[in-house]
Amino acid sequence: MEKLLIHNIGMLATPTGSTARRGARQGEIQILRGAWVLVENGMIANVGTGKPVPCDDATVLDAGGKLVTPGLVDAHTHLIFGGWRQNELGLKLHGVTYLEILARGGGILSTVTATRQATEEQLYDKAAAALNEMLAMGVTTVEAKSGYGLELENELKQLRVIRSLAENHPMDVAATFMGAHAVPVEYKDDREGYIRLLCEEMIPAVAKEKLARFCDVFCEKGVFTAEESRTILECGKRYGLIPKIHADEIEPIGGSELTAEVGAISAEHLIVCQPSGITAMAKAGTVACCLPATSFYLGSTYAPARDMVNAGVPVAMASDFNPGSCPSLNLQFVMNLGCLRYKLTPEEVLTAVTLNAAAAIHMAGRIGSVEAGKQGDLVIWDAPDLDYVCYRMGSNLASTVIKKGEVVVTR
Amino acid sequence: MEKLLIHNIGMLATPTGSTARRGARQGEIQILRGAWVLVENGMIANVGTGKPVPCDDATVLDAGGKLVTPGLVDAHTHLIFGGWRQNELGLKLHGVTYLEILARGGGILSTVTATRQATEEQLYDKAAAALNEMLAMGVTTVEAKSGYGLELENELKQLRVIRSLAENHPMDVAATFMGAHAVPVEYKDDREGYIRLLCEEMIPAVAKEKLARFCDVFCEKGVFTAEESRTILECGKRYGLIPKIHADEIEPIGGSELTAEVGAISAEHLIVCQPSGITAMAKAGTVACCLPATSFYLGSTYAPARDMVNAGVPVAMASDFNPGSCPSLNLQFVMNLGCLRYKLTPEEVLTAVTLNAAAAIHMAGRIGSVEAGKQGDLVIWDAPDLDYVCYRMGSNLASTVIKKGEVVVTR
Repeated sequence: MEKLLIHNIGMLATPTGSTARRGARQGEIQILRGAWVLVENGMIANVGTGKPVPCDDATVLDAGGKLVTPGLVDAHTHLIFGGWRQNELGLKLHGVTYLEILARGGGILSTVTATRQATEEQLYDKAAAALNEMLAMGVTTVEAKSGYGLELENELKQLRVIRSLAENHPMDVAATFMGAHAVPVEYKDDREGYIRLLCEEMIPAVAKEKLARFCDVFCEKGVFTAEESRTILECGKRYGLIPKIHADEIEPIGGSELTAEVGAISAEHLIVCQPSGITAMAKAGTVACCLPATSFYLGSTYAPARDMVNAGVPVAMASDFNPGSCPSLNLQFVMNLGCLRYKLTPEEVLTAVTLNAAAAIHMAGRIGSVEAGKQGDLVIWDAPDLDYVCYRMGSNLASTVIKKGEVVVTR
Repeated sequence: MEKLLIHNIGMLATPTGSTARRGARQGEIQILRGAWVLVENGMIANVGTGKPVPCDDATVLDAGGKLVTPGLVDAHTHLIFGGWRQNELGLKLHGVTYLEILARGGGILSTVTATRQATEEQLYDKAAAALNEMLAMGVTTVEAKSGYGLELENELKQLRVIRSLAENHPMDVAATFMGAHAVPVEYKDDREGYIRLLCEEMIPAVAKEKLARFCDVFCEKGVFTAEESRTILECGKRYGLIPKIHADEIEPIGGSELTAEVGAISAEHLIVCQPSGITAMAKAGTVACCLPATSFYLGSTYAPARDMVNAGVPVAMASDFNPGSCPSLNLQFVMNLGCLRYKLTPEEVLTAVTLNAAAAIHMAGRIGSVEAGKQGDLVIWDAPDLDYVCYRMGSNLASTVIKKGEVVVTR
């Protein structure tokens, strides 16, 4: 029996429960001072304050009076991609327009091309390096989407890489099929043909190999309409894939309103979400997965996350790590943005990147809080309290990262 | 003779020269591919492309085909302070106003109190830890200001800490006296008395101990007027201190226009700088030291850095690291902001955090570019090119940091 006792915790900050917290409850977290946590066989066995229960056979870790939280959960990433697109930043600043970049084969098309050209091994190595860095920043669970293959074999290739990472990397990795990320060039004059391909070939193949738990669609003007999104997500459901929706990122075309109808577990982006969408999500209990680093990178407005919390929508936040609109995998920066731009409190922010993020990927029963019965995923921070993590910007404050009761990163 | 040969440099990107670059020249940097750099006794001896000159007695460092730039220069920090102010972020988000925070003894007053209470050793240890982190992020020279003592002994205490750091830490540290950072509580009804104290006691004492090279003033509504700033800076000049001005951060009360008049080497912040200020700085050749991470943290507008470059003002960028308005020491984030918010090109950004930053602290003859005769301060980046450093956010991309020809950080 492997035992780890973490003691001398100055502040243990955690949401509690096994479901998303919303409304006032999003900010009502548990704060214990002078706490300890006992992890047995990878699972949290006990949490207390004061003198720890005697436990001779446990490895003992002194938290040095610092802050401890649950391991962070990044519930929205496009982790698997070939190439980068740094040249587009320089080109745009030198006056080249996005349309010209697209005409030169840039934009998302270049990522699709590079991803199709990459081998599984190349994609694995690149993604594993990113996961290592995320882990070192306090993230212990990641969601990862396909969506740069846009044809059967290349979508399966991306998902197989995700499965290998889930099997071999310390990180927990949840897989989402997102063949409906864009209409590929080959189908630009045959949208219906691509949707047929998605529903008749890709989704059945993904389900057959059990390569994904979720199905996501980019519901956006110029990409997939709300009606097309419904068709794709309903098909996914018939094959056991839980719906997610990229909704209201640029134009509000009905994505967030669709969530309730199809029973989506989460809606993503929501930058231009309207009151009707907020009402629909609050009613259905859909997790709003907000991606503030993308707003930051694009210089767009920010999702009305404050209004969502106030309206009773459970809000999660994630990185949206991808080579086009958010080349950052730093979830601590997302926490900064949660306070500075969304005006969420540090307590609401913590819930957004732990328990509510876990709920967005259907894992709130197992991770996202520090409580007996949950998985032993914790972070010891170079910080005396939670406010400090949200306030200090630009430094990696994760000091020790514990995954399933094992110290996987220490600095 | 200590020799270091860095070869297999995929891209060597550097501004050139020993003075600030402005106008179109700010973005005209030298790009060498397949380059090498030879450092002898801490100074750059030779730079070339192709096969390096044979040099049997040199330590050889393989840059692995990566990007190399000059070491970054952070030309504006408030490095020496007691305490932090994370509680203010939480308070504000929970609805407490800044005036209430001030009334509770918070705001800058709490930093003054904590700095006065701290010992030299405590301040040294805290600042040294920050310098270590900056070095690991590719910064090889830092400017540091006093200004949280606001009385003779405590201002000298801060400056002595800066001198000890300059003597003992690998980082080059340039000292600025900023007793005119605020009017201390004790003098709130006797502003003239505090200005007399600055001019008749503090500045002479700083000069006598040779504790600073620069004198800086916070020229701002409610702090020091342009006229008072002139008095203080002219006094500093008589004692050999080069003027710097915190100008146009919140209200344009004449700070940037004053730069030309007093011969300031740089003006800082400049968020609300008016066309008259830009014209004055362009004419005088004053370096505009812009601090975008402060705008980011405060959620304010951004300095018109693009207009300044276009108007022929040499633009530098710095962190403004301090516990109140910018709790970040990450100069790579400042580079991201230079592109994303100021709309400077990656080439202009590089000049802003190397040669022009060096010029802002009167060191452009010695640092800020990779050329024969300059100090051997270089960074090897986990990046194939300069665009990549400006595009990737949230990851520390500095791979190997070389200070005076010695590898001081490697990852």
